[in-house]
Amino acid sequence: MTDLPTILDFASMRALYASGTSPAEVMEAVALRMESCDPAAFILKRPKEAILAEARALLDRAPEPNSLPLWGVPFAVKDNIDVAGLPTTAACPDYAYTPTADATAVQRLKEAGAILIGKTNLDQFATGLNGTRSPYGAPRCVFDEAYVSGGSSSGSAVVVAAGIAAFALGTDTAGSGRVPAAFNNIVGIKPSPGRVPTTGVVPACRSIDVVTVFAPSVADGIAARAVAEGFEPADAYARRFADHGLPQALRIGVPEASEREFYGNEAYRALYGAAIARAEGLGATIVPFDYRPFREAAALLYEGPWVAERLAAIEAFFEDSPDSLDPTVRRIIEGAQTMSAADAFRGAYRLEELRREAEAEWAKVDCLLLPTSPDIQTVEAMRADPLALNARFGRFTNFANFFGCAAIAVPAGFTPAGLPFGVQLVAPQDTDDALGAFANRMHVAAATGAGLARDFSPPDFAAPAVAAGAEGGAIEIAVVGAHLTGMALNHELTERGARLVRAAKTAPDYRFYALDTTPEKPGLSRDPGFTGPGIALEIWSMAAVEFAGFVAAIPAPLGIGKLTLDDGTSLPGFICEPAALVSAHEITSSGGWKNYLGSRNSAA
Amino acid sequence: MTDLPTILDFASMRALYASGTSPAEVMEAVALRMESCDPAAFILKRPKEAILAEARALLDRAPEPNSLPLWGVPFAVKDNIDVAGLPTTAACPDYAYTPTADATAVQRLKEAGAILIGKTNLDQFATGLNGTRSPYGAPRCVFDEAYVSGGSSSGSAVVVAAGIAAFALGTDTAGSGRVPAAFNNIVGIKPSPGRVPTTGVVPACRSIDVVTVFAPSVADGIAARAVAEGFEPADAYARRFADHGLPQALRIGVPEASEREFYGNEAYRALYGAAIARAEGLGATIVPFDYRPFREAAALLYEGPWVAERLAAIEAFFEDSPDSLDPTVRRIIEGAQTMSAADAFRGAYRLEELRREAEAEWAKVDCLLLPTSPDIQTVEAMRADPLALNARFGRFTNFANFFGCAAIAVPAGFTPAGLPFGVQLVAPQDTDDALGAFANRMHVAAATGAGLARDFSPPDFAAPAVAAGAEGGAIEIAVVGAHLTGMALNHELTERGARLVRAAKTAPDYRFYALDTTPEKPGLSRDPGFTGPGIALEIWSMAAVEFAGFVAAIPAPLGIGKLTLDDGTSLPGFICEPAALVSAHEITSSGGWKNYLGSRNSAA
Repeated sequence: MTDLPTILDFASMRALYASGTSPAEVMEAVALRMESCDPAAFILKRPKEAILAEARALLDRAPEPNSLPLWGVPFAVKDNIDVAGLPTTAACPDYAYTPTADATAVQRLKEAGAILIGKTNLDQFATGLNGTRSPYGAPRCVFDEAYVSGGSSSGSAVVVAAGIAAFALGTDTAGSGRVPAAFNNIVGIKPSPGRVPTTGVVPACRSIDVVTVFAPSVADGIAARAVAEGFEPADAYARRFADHGLPQALRIGVPEASEREFYGNEAYRALYGAAIARAEGLGATIVPFDYRPFREAAALLYEGPWVAERLAAIEAFFEDSPDSLDPTVRRIIEGAQTMSAADAFRGAYRLEELRREAEAEWAKVDCLLLPTSPDIQTVEAMRADPLALNARFGRFTNFANFFGCAAIAVPAGFTPAGLPFGVQLVAPQDTDDALGAFANRMHVAAATGAGLARDFSPPDFAAPAVAAGAEGGAIEIAVVGAHLTGMALNHELTERGARLVRAAKTAPDYRFYALDTTPEKPGLSRDPGFTGPGIALEIWSMAAVEFAGFVAAIPAPLGIGKLTLDDGTSLPGFICEPAALVSAHEITSSGGWKNYLGSRNSAA
Repeated sequence: MTDLPTILDFASMRALYASGTSPAEVMEAVALRMESCDPAAFILKRPKEAILAEARALLDRAPEPNSLPLWGVPFAVKDNIDVAGLPTTAACPDYAYTPTADATAVQRLKEAGAILIGKTNLDQFATGLNGTRSPYGAPRCVFDEAYVSGGSSSGSAVVVAAGIAAFALGTDTAGSGRVPAAFNNIVGIKPSPGRVPTTGVVPACRSIDVVTVFAPSVADGIAARAVAEGFEPADAYARRFADHGLPQALRIGVPEASEREFYGNEAYRALYGAAIARAEGLGATIVPFDYRPFREAAALLYEGPWVAERLAAIEAFFEDSPDSLDPTVRRIIEGAQTMSAADAFRGAYRLEELRREAEAEWAKVDCLLLPTSPDIQTVEAMRADPLALNARFGRFTNFANFFGCAAIAVPAGFTPAGLPFGVQLVAPQDTDDALGAFANRMHVAAATGAGLARDFSPPDFAAPAVAAGAEGGAIEIAVVGAHLTGMALNHELTERGARLVRAAKTAPDYRFYALDTTPEKPGLSRDPGFTGPGIALEIWSMAAVEFAGFVAAIPAPLGIGKLTLDDGTSLPGFICEPAALVSAHEITSSGGWKNYLGSRNSAA
């Protein structure tokens, strides 16, 4: 029998396959684990024969090991997401139907070589953040079976944390793709709304539902998300998106003291404080911000008219078969029956007002570092007080989809009692990849491992080199001449609100010239193979919209291309048209514009 | 007594003031005209003394004639828009209140020197497109008093058409800023939603309400709109917008034959056909498109849950004083009382689906040319059948704000019976200025004059060059290689919402190279003194934030500097690092990248 690692991270899976292990051997081992897992985790376990048939089909289609992005990677799907030929229950047996087509996300993952092992349990109709609202039982926290797994994507989180699936799909309207990640010591990737199509997903709140990924690491979760995402015309809420960047030197918002509500969970409070300290240790600037508009938006999700989306999604079924529902879910959805269309619009107005109020806070920070859930509870306690305790879990998650945010939940330590705690990084729309870099550093720094694999080391994750561009995004730029601190054109940066990030120098193969311009300016020119001193520069960060104006105003012969630094990284910076170098004189040996001007002045 | 022109266009007003006429003299003449105007046009005429006091105050504040953008220009305001110290009735006397602050738009116009002469009549609560739903009477079409003026901004259109105000503010949710323009032979500027703040406006459907301008010409209307517009944090629906361009060679969509519904008004049908012919004569390419998704979206406005926004706006008043309402308005708003929040969300879903369906039609065209209203009716007929006949008027207008469009209604001729007909140009969000250029050419070509001034000649209107800036900026960029239309990286522009402005070529002193890159890309290099063919390029326009992301993502050796065109102008465009030219081969003689690839492929 193949010896699987404790948690099924992608690197281990690829290594197994690279070393000659067959998908069938891996699936045999996975099937064995499925037998002994939390009995409430799956609503439907695919029979071993069906899984092995998938493994054979993969070999027929793509015989070369690891020749597809997710070649032979076992995954599970929350049971509110369609898989062709398997019933979709949404954890409500009487609601079940058997779709003939895969949800778009599932189809893309299968095409990339992933092998589906089963459909996982959830809070019925994805209505809940705790995992107890299901007739299929309550999946338990993998570290303490007295405690809830979190929800609504309860089963998906548990099967990843227990090393049964390498990744699993969840959904997240209020926080269902993050809270269960926190309660099981794994990563929850919550894409910006509209990136991963929701075609083939039972709606909770259709206008803001998001398909998510649970995985052992940020790198694995983002890799699966990248396969699942992409425009889909059949989903009216799908977007054509462009990735936006975040500055290297992050300003990270944390709630002011009055908004740090942990409902008496002092262990979680302490772990959150430690996470903030880690973020600071990783070079982030910690910025207190006012969480109030975010909190008020969060409250709208269950206290405002959006509950009516849950009713709209299943209204005929709900009216015909109210007794088919979990009592708590029924009670929540019933609340929508008395909400009027005028109420719905008033809720929308309030949300727009809160979005505007939140803008002032977003201006201070690049992303937010928040507790994923400020509390955890036992199954028993949750069942005794199902609404109030559930509401606690969503205090810091519920706003994210309203505001179009990307969010990544990462492990952030364990309480003295051995219960996991998680934090989430939340940032403006389509910073999904950029956010991953710091989220992963937070995961690594927390040294929690992943799921039951407490010694697991998350792999590196570098955000793909896609640059910034949206409201909220900032762009770094290297300046080498009159824009340096104290020089004549530095005000063009400071007037645009740019911040000095650090001093640095170019790679050694740059030559430097004093151009024949008025005012006098330098020009950089890369000369591959040349070895010089490297040219001194400063890296400044500014809002994307300001960067745009700055670039558009640069006169010939200069422009903004890419400069390579002495550490091998590259970033936007000044380049020069060739013709201007003809009449220039080389000043490479000065090592920089300030040195050059200084030596010339002292010589004069 | 000063001799005012028949219609108070801005050029005439400026000429009067430049020649020494005082604002007081102009206002005396305006006040005289106010005495004899349609008695239903105004709800509140300011006393002559108050208007003259404003004229004196203007002289104190800005003594130099024409020293402010709207110096001494008389204007009127629809009575659902606040003016400090004057009652706002929304055409419902029992609802009236007296605001202490001007609506933001009014405040900006006053600051620019415009002088308010009164508050105008409207369909009560802006609920209607015909002008008969008001206890203050029904303003009449200025050409035939048997006919309706159109609404809901009935009085505002009439006072401009009659030469009493130089411009007037209206509002437009369904078409209230366009239909009355059509019925009175004037221009209606309907900005993209979110450009002109609605702060201080009684909401109709708050999520899509728009403040509009009626004026004798496109140039005048856009000049007033430019004063009134701009971000306002207090309006949660206000946007930070960037102007977009439109191509010089417009593809203009007209409905396929089956969607050309004129309800038997054959005179209007013929005038619409003539307008299409004029557009073609002006160089546009006429493209039939499927109006169905637009029509279905239009129908949602009164048949779907958005009526509940009208209820939400006045719910307490409505419940306390139902008898205070116009019977037809009451009947419409009552319909919302049985609409549920689930209905509201289902309506929102349907709208998103229709928006997606309409995308396929937008891909074929740059803008739409539609009848403003396909029919006009007498006041008597309208009163006899107030709902069905009103619905006709909105058939081609109701979708525009749902889809975020800019629209401009312009005169388009008269029926044999002497009734005016109008058409509207409708284009995607923030093409407001760009759309003005063609709209004005259509107005000029129709040779209708403006309002009662049938011999009026609209002044030229050239869309301002879009400039870079923090809030309102779009940036034009010249591309020469893989970003050209149809080439491999063109999607990097279209995904960022960029629009093709026009084709052009560089100044003759550019050399052009095929670089040794993968994928193959070209590089431009200016060589002063060299004379070549000039290199073909395309100019694209995109929002500043998108430009920022685009620039930041460009890999070395390329970057964005300034290119000089063959007309001597310069703009941002691709430049190339010198080192990359060493291994490149020159292809200047090809005259452009497409030519080069084409000749190479045909040679292969």
